[in-house]
Amino acid sequence: MSPRDGLQSVKAFIPTQEKVRLIEALISAGLPKIEVTSFVSPKWIPQLADAEHLIESLRKESGTIFQALVLNEKGFQRARRTNLVKEITFVVASTEALNRKNVNMSIADSMRQFASIAKLAKADGIRPRGLVGVAFVCPHEGRVPTSRVLELIEKFFTSGAEEVTLADSLGAAAPDHVYDLFVQAKETFPDKAFAAHFHDTQHLALANIFSAMCAGIDVFEAAVGELGGCPFTAGARGNVATERLVYMLHSMGIETGIDYDQLVKASAFAHQLVSSPSHEAQSAQAGLSLMQTQ
Amino acid sequence: MSPRDGLQSVKAFIPTQEKVRLIEALISAGLPKIEVTSFVSPKWIPQLADAEHLIESLRKESGTIFQALVLNEKGFQRARRTNLVKEITFVVASTEALNRKNVNMSIADSMRQFASIAKLAKADGIRPRGLVGVAFVCPHEGRVPTSRVLELIEKFFTSGAEEVTLADSLGAAAPDHVYDLFVQAKETFPDKAFAAHFHDTQHLALANIFSAMCAGIDVFEAAVGELGGCPFTAGARGNVATERLVYMLHSMGIETGIDYDQLVKASAFAHQLVSSPSHEAQSAQAGLSLMQTQ
Repeated sequence: MSPRDGLQSVKAFIPTQEKVRLIEALISAGLPKIEVTSFVSPKWIPQLADAEHLIESLRKESGTIFQALVLNEKGFQRARRTNLVKEITFVVASTEALNRKNVNMSIADSMRQFASIAKLAKADGIRPRGLVGVAFVCPHEGRVPTSRVLELIEKFFTSGAEEVTLADSLGAAAPDHVYDLFVQAKETFPDKAFAAHFHDTQHLALANIFSAMCAGIDVFEAAVGELGGCPFTAGARGNVATERLVYMLHSMGIETGIDYDQLVKASAFAHQLVSSPSHEAQSAQAGLSLMQTQ
Repeated sequence: MSPRDGLQSVKAFIPTQEKVRLIEALISAGLPKIEVTSFVSPKWIPQLADAEHLIESLRKESGTIFQALVLNEKGFQRARRTNLVKEITFVVASTEALNRKNVNMSIADSMRQFASIAKLAKADGIRPRGLVGVAFVCPHEGRVPTSRVLELIEKFFTSGAEEVTLADSLGAAAPDHVYDLFVQAKETFPDKAFAAHFHDTQHLALANIFSAMCAGIDVFEAAVGELGGCPFTAGARGNVATERLVYMLHSMGIETGIDYDQLVKASAFAHQLVSSPSHEAQSAQAGLSLMQTQ
């Protein structure tokens, strides 16, 4: 998720060619999927205004699947026209207040948007994915009721999602909660595909991933170099670092097809990218809603 | 473990009164047990040469149990004479080479030492604990065979240990390995007490603790501020930070009796202590055997 979730948190516009270098490094490391950018209005996220140009600049022959975030039909159409985005992710937050803050829409309206996008996507051979933001702990309401998360999962699947990610956007979930929620989700939707997404604010991301693995989850979102933040609240750290996750998986003897040494090099480059004084890199500040609709 | 495992890794001698402040802060935070120092020769660890003076300077009325590391009978006698050390920990490494490097003794000789110390300790109402160092991954030999660890555990218990800690001294253990080893240990010695000790070199300590909890372990060693290193190899990070562990436990609704905010204050003080330029604080370098015998 570094090229999207990571670089949108950097205030400055990072030149397209440097983003390409980061993505190419991740491709070389053997990442199976990369969320390369977000098709949102440049008005809201000027950092990712080069989405089409970026994707056209990537080499085409890799086995890596390119994912992109879209938040409405206009964004989807932009992603589709590249012919290179094979999976799209659509975010709905678990509370009305947070969803409105994020995309200025009710959850019901978001789901209607998603349903129409998912239909178009499938017709074009693009895999639609849903992400439940703040699926575990809400900055305002605390622990999110399981019933509400299950309801959102169901809406995503009935609206056409082929995979649903449960995201600990704050990095505040506890390992037992993670286990319980994924067990419930898998029992309720036994034939469906799930993924997990943990921020590392409280250093619990790897414990949460291990716990999710114990519940049978085997798709995880991560960001090389732990780039990124959280659009829902200030102070959250980035997604779990891909290299830490891969180290853990390899230490358990789990094959990932990822070259750890190349990944560490990509991480070093990512850090260089966001800390370069020429990019005036700074994490986006509190209150800035990063995933606004167009 | 910060006052012992942490401060022995700092090159400079930290004044006794500052160590006392750190320990008092940990007592105020409600830590149930604190390893306050190590009774080893000042020739080997001059940083902890003030062991008796330190313990005499601590307030006596707290409910916290004071532990100390001892590596031979002379050290034990020093600990005993304070009348305040209620638990002693004795380290044996899992390989002959590492045990010799650490205490210049064969494993068999170490175990004989421990047996005589344990007998004396019990006669004095002091609880003897054994710690298997490098119980998971050896820097030279890789994964430590389970059979060897079980053999060391058995020797510790037959020599009088009332609790045995399995330590991932390098911070290189994988969560599935941790689970398997503790399950085996508990099945083999069902009536015995175990503890776990994880360094955070690869950021896996909390995942490993959660995994050990799944195997039924409920005693964990940690170091406030993640102070410390590893005497067996260069580059290992300190014990998992107590505050991170407590955060995880509290997030799971597990009562610890520890005041998290006080603990965070103690952590800040610990960092101040080891990073003060006046203490010329630096982590001990590779090759320096920190837990040498007297």
